[in-house]
Amino acid sequence: MMATLQAIKYNDGQLEILDQLLLPESCTFIPICKVEDAWAAIREMKVRGAPAIAIVGCLSLAVELRKLAVPESKEELCRMVKEKLDYLVTSRPTAVNMQLAAESCVQLCARLSDNTLLSVAEAKGDIVKHLEATLANDVADNRAIGEHGACDITKKNATKDKLRIMTHCNTGSLATAGYGTALGVIRSLHAASKLDQVYCTETRPYNQGSRLTAFELVYEKIPATLVCDSMAAAAMREFKMDAVVVGADRVAANGDTANKIGTYQLAVLAKSHDVLFYVAAPFSSIDFQIPNGHSIPIEERPHSEMTHTGSTRTAAAGINCWNPGFDVTPAELITGGIITEKGVFKPDQLAPHQ
Amino acid sequence: MMATLQAIKYNDGQLEILDQLLLPESCTFIPICKVEDAWAAIREMKVRGAPAIAIVGCLSLAVELRKLAVPESKEELCRMVKEKLDYLVTSRPTAVNMQLAAESCVQLCARLSDNTLLSVAEAKGDIVKHLEATLANDVADNRAIGEHGACDITKKNATKDKLRIMTHCNTGSLATAGYGTALGVIRSLHAASKLDQVYCTETRPYNQGSRLTAFELVYEKIPATLVCDSMAAAAMREFKMDAVVVGADRVAANGDTANKIGTYQLAVLAKSHDVLFYVAAPFSSIDFQIPNGHSIPIEERPHSEMTHTGSTRTAAAGINCWNPGFDVTPAELITGGIITEKGVFKPDQLAPHQ
Repeated sequence: MMATLQAIKYNDGQLEILDQLLLPESCTFIPICKVEDAWAAIREMKVRGAPAIAIVGCLSLAVELRKLAVPESKEELCRMVKEKLDYLVTSRPTAVNMQLAAESCVQLCARLSDNTLLSVAEAKGDIVKHLEATLANDVADNRAIGEHGACDITKKNATKDKLRIMTHCNTGSLATAGYGTALGVIRSLHAASKLDQVYCTETRPYNQGSRLTAFELVYEKIPATLVCDSMAAAAMREFKMDAVVVGADRVAANGDTANKIGTYQLAVLAKSHDVLFYVAAPFSSIDFQIPNGHSIPIEERPHSEMTHTGSTRTAAAGINCWNPGFDVTPAELITGGIITEKGVFKPDQLAPHQ
Repeated sequence: MMATLQAIKYNDGQLEILDQLLLPESCTFIPICKVEDAWAAIREMKVRGAPAIAIVGCLSLAVELRKLAVPESKEELCRMVKEKLDYLVTSRPTAVNMQLAAESCVQLCARLSDNTLLSVAEAKGDIVKHLEATLANDVADNRAIGEHGACDITKKNATKDKLRIMTHCNTGSLATAGYGTALGVIRSLHAASKLDQVYCTETRPYNQGSRLTAFELVYEKIPATLVCDSMAAAAMREFKMDAVVVGADRVAANGDTANKIGTYQLAVLAKSHDVLFYVAAPFSSIDFQIPNGHSIPIEERPHSEMTHTGSTRTAAAGINCWNPGFDVTPAELITGGIITEKGVFKPDQLAPHQ
């Protein structure tokens, strides 16, 4: 079996990332040698997807620390680490994952400083290990999501030999450390020889489906068909879809889920066509502070995403646009369940400590 | 009030058409001086939409006949007319409207030949009048569709001052002789000061909504908002849509309707959101030979429409595509009715002679 597409390659202090700006035209990896390189790559959107951003940030710091001579004191080490983390957070201030990763690393620094038995070199080694673990942890979580999801979908379609799955946007190796969330479920089904075909939507207006998901599926030779967003219902009727699996930007405590615009529509169509609808996301995406989807604000994005392709105008000049970045799917439409690394939950059975 | 956008301008033997290939970048009219000009414009898709194609063909022949010296005999006149009509039909052999228009004109020629009281000059004048009438007849039918539709929608939303309507694809002045079918209904609502806002979908993959419908709406200053096809459900929920109005390629005897891909999906979403769903089309679009939608074949279109914008690749290389040109909406989802120039019908109340 072909290896999963790796958009973030890390090996013994060497970091390379796939330049997503060049996709689908060209598949080019660029080296990241210091935190400044990571900052620029994140800012320029060469890497995107909240988990991926945090991991590239952390790994770029690990690269620097590995090359660094051991500082004179743990205080100096920790001050330097904190400075570089603060700087990395400024690359995409709205992506909360880098912020969370930075906080976690700063807490580790505090613990290491307090531990008088530890040398400066040992503390430096522990920080590097912590930063490097973000990659493996995210991949491990995604693989667990993939396994739980594939298992649940297979169980609920026990009479069928091979399954047809629809997905939306990009939730694969290009948005995570590797493997993916919703796309991870599809990878696991394919690995288990249970996948007949995956139908991926274009995901207008930014085309994450046709550019990125289609790229991953072709790369890994997973049987796939691209459809326009307008064809979802016709495809469900024509091809007898077995499940729709999508990712999540944020899940509220009651299971209402904010995700890429178009997700709500797929959930309504799945319900009308008697197709199971699943959300796949790390457990950390469930925000128990938010009671339901009404509290999630909808970001509106630039109209140029809809009116232009590159620098070419494709919509009539002067037309007003509505371009919400995501929408909220009510919990009752998530008929399959919410797939996390801890298992698959009914939306009304979510609890902080599972 | 600003005049309706005219894509076909005809006046006393002078014919000009809007070159739709240059939209939305440029609004350029080109003269059509003979049937060869019309043939080329149709073949190159400078004019599109089945009714518009037939009208441009007929008018180009009228232009030629007006300039022509009176032939020696009616036989010679009719032979020449038939030759030119046969030639025009070859421009887009699949568009049935030009074929029907040609048949109707050939039948007229036969009647004129049989009428021994008529001179050659009088016969020539009658043929010109017949050809010229296609433009006015189509506009008159569309205006009647507009009035019937606006009236029905207003009546069913009697408690509301202004209405929010969603439409799909292009059914306006650019696809018909002028005014339009579904867009004609929207024009009539606007003229009656009953329109709050029209929401038009992009209509992937050929973007008839963002390129053509948006162009018409901006041109006529009708309050309009462009949405991606993936945003239809979110827009229905967010803006409390009052009706969806679409056109039709063909309506079966039981009311099942074939129309641009994405129509079926909008009908399902309208039903789930309690929004009235209307089809607007000339009565001649109802094919009583076809019992239901199952008999309508679905044409699949080139994948390049989905993978490229102009010559730029926008989807990953090697991805398989599904690109059906249209879909069939079951009659039971057409909750508002089928709007024709003869009135608004419930899908199960269609009969050949209304």
